[in-house]
Parts: sequence; structure tokens; C-alpha cells
Amino acid sequence: MRLLTFSPKSGGVNRIGLLRENNRVLDIFLEAKNRRLALTFDPLDMLSLIAAGENGLASVRELNKGAGVQDLSLEAILISAPIPRPRKNIFCVGWNYLEHFKEGEKIRQSGQELPKYPVFFSKAVTAVTGPFDSIPYDAKVTEKLDWEVELGVVIGSSGKNISTDNAMKHVFGYTVVNDISARNLQKRHGGQWFKGKSLDGTCPIGPYIVTPEGIDPDNLQVITRINGVVKQDSNTKYFYFKIPQLIAELSVGMTLEPGDILSTGTPPGVGFARTPPEYLKPGDVMETEIIGLGTMRNAIGSDCI
Amino acid sequence: MRLLTFSPKSGGVNRIGLLRENNRVLDIFLEAKNRRLALTFDPLDMLSLIAAGENGLASVRELNKGAGVQDLSLEAILISAPIPRPRKNIFCVGWNYLEHFKEGEKIRQSGQELPKYPVFFSKAVTAVTGPFDSIPYDAKVTEKLDWEVELGVVIGSSGKNISTDNAMKHVFGYTVVNDISARNLQKRHGGQWFKGKSLDGTCPIGPYIVTPEGIDPDNLQVITRINGVVKQDSNTKYFYFKIPQLIAELSVGMTLEPGDILSTGTPPGVGFARTPPEYLKPGDVMETEIIGLGTMRNAIGSDCI
Repeated sequence: MRLLTFSPKSGGVNRIGLLRENNRVLDIFLEAKNRRLALTFDPLDMLSLIAAGENGLASVRELNKGAGVQDLSLEAILISAPIPRPRKNIFCVGWNYLEHFKEGEKIRQSGQELPKYPVFFSKAVTAVTGPFDSIPYDAKVTEKLDWEVELGVVIGSSGKNISTDNAMKHVFGYTVVNDISARNLQKRHGGQWFKGKSLDGTCPIGPYIVTPEGIDPDNLQVITRINGVVKQDSNTKYFYFKIPQLIAELSVGMTLEPGDILSTGTPPGVGFARTPPEYLKPGDVMETEIIGLGTMRNAIGSDCI
Repeated sequence: MRLLTFSPKSGGVNRIGLLRENNRVLDIFLEAKNRRLALTFDPLDMLSLIAAGENGLASVRELNKGAGVQDLSLEAILISAPIPRPRKNIFCVGWNYLEHFKEGEKIRQSGQELPKYPVFFSKAVTAVTGPFDSIPYDAKVTEKLDWEVELGVVIGSSGKNISTDNAMKHVFGYTVVNDISARNLQKRHGGQWFKGKSLDGTCPIGPYIVTPEGIDPDNLQVITRINGVVKQDSNTKYFYFKIPQLIAELSVGMTLEPGDILSTGTPPGVGFARTPPEYLKPGDVMETEIIGLGTMRNAIGSDCI
């Protein structure tokens, strides 16, 4: 199932939708209202659906059956990040494709050893933006804005000290995350990446959350195109730490909660490591895609960050 | 004004209180109900009071006047963190007392240069715990649990690219934060501190938020005692980056919001830098105090983290 958060262009608040096989969007909120179906979740809030677990998804499947459904074309809606306001910062992983670690090492020349444990950092919730929103650009803040396409894992059920064996049971679904990074800021705050990863509007997520059936998260092609030119093109099969290990390590002594988002690291091809380095500039169009999960398209704006 | 979040031991949900001059606690929720005073905020939710700004505080002052108030002794209540569930991770600052940087350098031997910009990182919202709660201890997760008393700054009004001149206008108040750190985890995740700073229950906050009148944030004594023995004893006058600079740098390209918490870094005297190193163990009682803001007292528990 491809689940999304959207508002109709004709007006109305954000709500949950289901992108159907025919590429039309079922309006869960209106459909449940029409059918007078009592839901175990708030149809305006993806976090509520995630927290409702299997019961919630069963209602969505039920609503998708039969005629007379409230569906809309993709042209008739505005798509937000599937979780427009997460309840905590986005969990991020660094250096999770060996080749990306190596391309950065060329620049860092720090002799940093390959991590024995995953590199975790966070991205502020205020950075989250929609899959088709423009990205703020303010040269006074950064002229080193860089792309990072990543597989996002959405947590479905709460857990702490989760074993690798049980980890995948805690996954609600998958999405695309673009961990846009201000390289000047990432570097200058004493080696901690948080600030350079957290500018407003630098975390497009979407376009959908895709539930796990039929998805092999260990074999997904992840791609970035800038103005149509491929910059990143790799596969999650090259992960240094696989998803069960990431979830197990992240949850050591720390409770994961429904709706948490874990972004799993970016493959080679980022701008700062290219020769010569390349950065985003106003007017650029950036596409981040994971085949099977969808494509985001974000223009670099000229409005202030 | 000393504002707190509490529940009566006799029963009832968390609510906002005002600690009065006589050390009794005004129950804002019940008092407003008794007086049939319409509030511009939800009296069960500190975040709502903070967002209500000066109007909200004016109502609290009004409720504090006159006879017949609903007040309780401190013995009759359970005090939570003033903001039990922040809306995003806690913003933290590293190396903000020169002496603390130096004591760590002795151990690190990395030749890390003094930062030209503040070191920012985050602590998961799930780490937040009350000022008198016990701290989970699980030797399988860490045997290197360490204390860090810090001045916490609570943001009152939204802003981005805030100037140092305007920064203090964005402060709602001050509190004590204990940035408890698992030193083994802080170190092992590729140099990013997030994971070692984010175990469940490792961020006591409180006991109150103290509004700025009468407080000089540049001259506050900050103290940690373990089992009655003073371990940290310094003053915010030794800050390397003052609060206006921290707010200005943090808000570069990133919106701060009402209720955000910024913890300003810890002074010398932490356990890992002592000779020999000292770490917290089950049964220890840890007091963190800022004179004028209050004292937190957290026992190290034997329950699993």
C-alpha cells in the first residue's frame, strides 16, 4: 500500500490518502465519512494511522474495496511529507555505503576509521518538507547545499533493545528521504553534524510511505538527478549496516516509537566529494528516487532559508 | 515566576502549577476553574502556556492574587519535567566552559581545536525525565553513565536568523538540565554524540521553569553533588559562548519554536575526566543544582534502561 498525506487543491485540510493501482488517490477521510465507517484512527493524521497498527491498515483496505470511492487524480492534490510534523527529530545514519565513506575520506584526509557501530545523528523536525516543495536557499547561510538520497524506514511499533531477529516486525513502511546538507555548517560546529543537517526545508520526505509487502529493502535502487543528470545511482544491497542492525543498535537503551523515521545513509555521488565539488544553486531541480517507492522533485528556491 | 508541571498525589492528571513565595504550589487548572476564569491556554500543558506568551503569564499572575487559592504543599505533589514531552529533540551545546573542554582534551589527546562556532547536538525527546525520577541503569548498555549539570534555556517565541541583540527577547525562562551521558556510546558511533546522549531517562529537567525577571543568566552557580560530594561547581559567567550567541548561531537558517529547550553545556568536573574516572552506579544519589533555579535529585535505579 502506498499511503500519503495530501490536501485537495479545491480546498481542505491535510488528510491521509491511499494511492491506488490506477494511480488515483483514495481520500480516506471522505470515504470513511461517506460509508459511515468508524475508524480506529484519525483519518487526518498519518501518525494516528501508524499507531493504530494492523487494525488501521485493515480499515484502509476495506475502504479501498467496492465502487463509489472518493478518489482524486494526482493533479488534483497537493502532497505533503507523509508525516508533516514528526514527534521527534529524524534519526539519521552516516557512512552506510562503503563507497560514500571512501569518497568523503578523500576530502577529509582525517584517517577516520571505518565505524564498528553505525554513525547516528539527528535532523531537526523543522527541516521536514514535502516531496515537491521548493528548498529554501539563502547564500548568507550556505553556498554549500548538497543532496543525499536515502531510504527512509518508518517505525510502526514501539520497542527498546530490539534484537536483529525482531527488528523488521517494528517496520511500518518505507519512504524516500533527501538528507540535504549544508556542508559549511556540517563541518564548523566542532565535528557534530546536527546543525548542518537541520536547516529549515532541508528534509524532503515522501512522496508516500509504502508498506513492506512486496518490497525488498535490501535491493532497492536509489537515485539522485540534478537537472536531469544522474549524480547518485546505487542500491541498498551495498548497505554497510543492514536495516535490522540499524534498528537494533539505535534502540539500545532508547525506545523507538510509532512514526519515528530512520534515514539509512546515502550512497556515493554527493556534491562535495565530486571533482570539482558541486553544490545546489537557485533554479536547480533535484530529483530523488527509489525505484518502487517513488520520486521526489524539489526545486531550489530563491527565498530565504 | 517558578512554573512547574505536577500531578497531585491524591490523584489527577499533569497540570501547570506556580510555586509561590511561601513554597506552596498554586494549581492553575483548578484555580482557573474555581474562579471561572477563561484562559488563553490549556492549563494542563506547559507548552500551551509558553505559546500563549505574555497574555498567558498575565493570567497566571492574576490567579496568584487574592484569597481562596487552590494551593498545595510540595509534599502533596509529584513534579514532572516542566515540559514532559518536548516537540522535538533537546538542543545541546558541547564544550562551552573552557575548562571542561580542557579536561576532556587530556583524555581525547586528539588535538581538537577550540571551536570557533558552538558545538550543537541533540538529545532524544524520549530521554526527558522528571527532576526527582530515578535514572534507569542497565550494565549491558553502559557502565559509563556520567553527569553533566547545565543551564537550560526555554524558548518563548518563534524565530530564525535571530540577532544577538534580539536573542534574549526569545527566552521564556530558565531551568536545570542534567545531560547524562553514556560515555561508551558517545564515543563509539563514529564521533557523533547523539546516541550516547539519548538513552531513556537520561535527561532530567526541572524542577521549575523560572521566568527571566530577577535572573542574571550570566552569573548562575551550577553544581553537581554525587552522594553529597561536590563534583561540579562552576558559574555560567565562564561560558565560552554566551546565551545570545548560542541562540543566534542555533537559529541560523533554522526556526526556533516556543517550548524548545537549549541546554548550554557543562562545566568541569564530569566523571570520565576525573583521575581515576568515576561513573554513576546503582544506588547513587545525584543532585544537580543551579542556585536561584532549584535542585534536582535523581537516584540511579537498578531497573533496566
